[in-house]
Amino acid sequence: MKILLLAGDGIGPEIMAEAEKVLAALTLPVTLDRALVGGAAYAATGHPLPPETLAKAKAADGILFGAVGDPRFDNVERHLRPEQAILGLRSELGLFANLRPAKLFAGLEDSSALRPEVASAIDLLIVRELNGDVYFGEKGTRKTASGEREGYDIMSYSESEVRRIAHVAFRAAQGRAKRLCSVDKANVLETSQLWRDVVIEVAADYPDVALSHMYVDNAAMQLVRNPGQFDVVVTGNLFGDILSDQASMCVGSIGLLASASLSEGKQGLYEPIHGSAPDIAGKGIANPLAMILSLAMLLRHSGGDEASAARIEAAVAKVLADGCRGADLGGTMGTAALGDAVVTALNG
Amino acid sequence: MKILLLAGDGIGPEIMAEAEKVLAALTLPVTLDRALVGGAAYAATGHPLPPETLAKAKAADGILFGAVGDPRFDNVERHLRPEQAILGLRSELGLFANLRPAKLFAGLEDSSALRPEVASAIDLLIVRELNGDVYFGEKGTRKTASGEREGYDIMSYSESEVRRIAHVAFRAAQGRAKRLCSVDKANVLETSQLWRDVVIEVAADYPDVALSHMYVDNAAMQLVRNPGQFDVVVTGNLFGDILSDQASMCVGSIGLLASASLSEGKQGLYEPIHGSAPDIAGKGIANPLAMILSLAMLLRHSGGDEASAARIEAAVAKVLADGCRGADLGGTMGTAALGDAVVTALNG
Ligand SMILES: CC(C)[C@H](C(=O)O)[C@@H](O)C(=O)O
Ligand SMILES: CC(C)[C@H](C(=O)O)[C@@H](O)C(=O)O
Repeated sequence: MKILLLAGDGIGPEIMAEAEKVLAALTLPVTLDRALVGGAAYAATGHPLPPETLAKAKAADGILFGAVGDPRFDNVERHLRPEQAILGLRSELGLFANLRPAKLFAGLEDSSALRPEVASAIDLLIVRELNGDVYFGEKGTRKTASGEREGYDIMSYSESEVRRIAHVAFRAAQGRAKRLCSVDKANVLETSQLWRDVVIEVAADYPDVALSHMYVDNAAMQLVRNPGQFDVVVTGNLFGDILSDQASMCVGSIGLLASASLSEGKQGLYEPIHGSAPDIAGKGIANPLAMILSLAMLLRHSGGDEASAARIEAAVAKVLADGCRGADLGGTMGTAALGDAVVTALNG
Repeated sequence: MKILLLAGDGIGPEIMAEAEKVLAALTLPVTLDRALVGGAAYAATGHPLPPETLAKAKAADGILFGAVGDPRFDNVERHLRPEQAILGLRSELGLFANLRPAKLFAGLEDSSALRPEVASAIDLLIVRELNGDVYFGEKGTRKTASGEREGYDIMSYSESEVRRIAHVAFRAAQGRAKRLCSVDKANVLETSQLWRDVVIEVAADYPDVALSHMYVDNAAMQLVRNPGQFDVVVTGNLFGDILSDQASMCVGSIGLLASASLSEGKQGLYEPIHGSAPDIAGKGIANPLAMILSLAMLLRHSGGDEASAARIEAAVAKVLADGCRGADLGGTMGTAALGDAVVTALNG
């Protein structure tokens, strides 16, 4: 298996180093490659997703991605900002299905902002569409009739875009508790109405899955009130961005959540759901666990190696159950110490 | 002062009756009128916002609004659905500024899904733009080149739309802790980039207010992690819809949050942020406190009667501190009993 490591900006390189340690400890038959991405690539080449990086990404079976985002480049033209690298990879590689599992690890009952009894019940999977919606529609700034500036972005979904993500979500629900909640804003948006209509059509193929619908405002509320009610949640790119970050806090730290971005085939990109955290970059205090858990997802989904994935996840769970905590969880362990602890647990 | 009562659907009429009790107990010199709205109006007249209702609304100083939404009409054409009534009132009356305060009432520390120490710190005001964004842009269903159905909605904000809501938010912050957080998704959306640029321009008029910016995904996370960090939050129509519902759960129940929708002048519409709750309609168990608190906002903003507004708010606070709880807060008091308790507290 060919794995491409894209460390990116901010804390990306630090946490990537720990995922590499874990990968090395597994001694799997993989070939590793590296490339520049995000602000780091922009600084070196003038583009956040240089052609060479994109070519390597296309050739890889799995891409392990750190994070992009660098405040130094917040004011460059939009198409050259670090964030465009991840958006470009998602669209160029057709990575339309973003899986974001959230589950409370044993030992973290007291780390969530939610009451322990509310937080303990969390075990959900957010399936976020990643190639469409207002992210990729026509956008720009224009002048109104009265000569004012106006910013605009077109939100849209076509039938086939909704259908393929719905299938992914229904199949995921079949492998879990068989409940799927589709989140939209169909009382206001035509895009959502089409979304809902198509999800209902696809449901006919999955009579064993119980489908429900929820408006996004209500979903944001229910994710705080009673997150344990959800099994699989499927939603569009924008709502998925918001709800999955929100869900991350329910489990204690955004430093614990991994994600997989999958295409129709086995190729995928795997990244923590947190960002580049420039405020703590270089201090050696970033939590590497979401990055390490992203490696587990890579081995599972692109490598077909469920055993290694489960081994990594068990090691992370053990480390947390043993009380290892970084700064994000009120502890004192640094990035490297947490990575070392996972390697020790792997071999233990 | 002329007040129009629009009870609407579901639990609307039940909770409106309790607000009327409270208004009667205050013996203020107001004239009351009533009209049909939402599903109730559609059933009677074929339109959710009949011309007569709109005319009465235009003539009123303050509109007290219950809730609209009725699953029986979920499949009628979009422009005839109950929800269109509230969207129509907001746009026809130019109600562009939606104020949604959220604060934990004493005695409810244990009712929030958040830990008591996290929830107690909540005291924020969400200022949501209400006349623009993807809510009111061109929308529809079209065929793609390949013949598929595609739903689309245009998101946009013009300079002047952002400027007027920014002024409302900065002024609100001046009357509070002088901190304003503007929420957008400027790393992806051009609409958000213009929003951010204009908010920064307006900030020059308010050197005493500390302005910060946050991406919406991060804001949804921070509202769970540490909601006490926020004073005033200003955001667009769609993000405001999501974040304010989410914030409501942090204070224990969506049945406690009132909102004001204001125009350039003194006219306003006041409504609970919860919906019509068809599942509990007619059972006499809905929480009327958000409706009663909406009346307080009406008297304050459209009536200029701060004293009566404060009296109502103190009475609601006393009722909650005394342990009165409806079903939404795990108690047994019904809608009418809660309304009566507020009246008793008013006079006590
Ligand atoms: C960096 C940004 C463009 C991205 C997104 O909005 O998709 C991020 O927030 C995410 O969720 O992966
Ligand atoms: C009923 C619906 C159209 C409305 C909205 O989305 O604005 C509601 O959710 C609200 O927040 O007032």
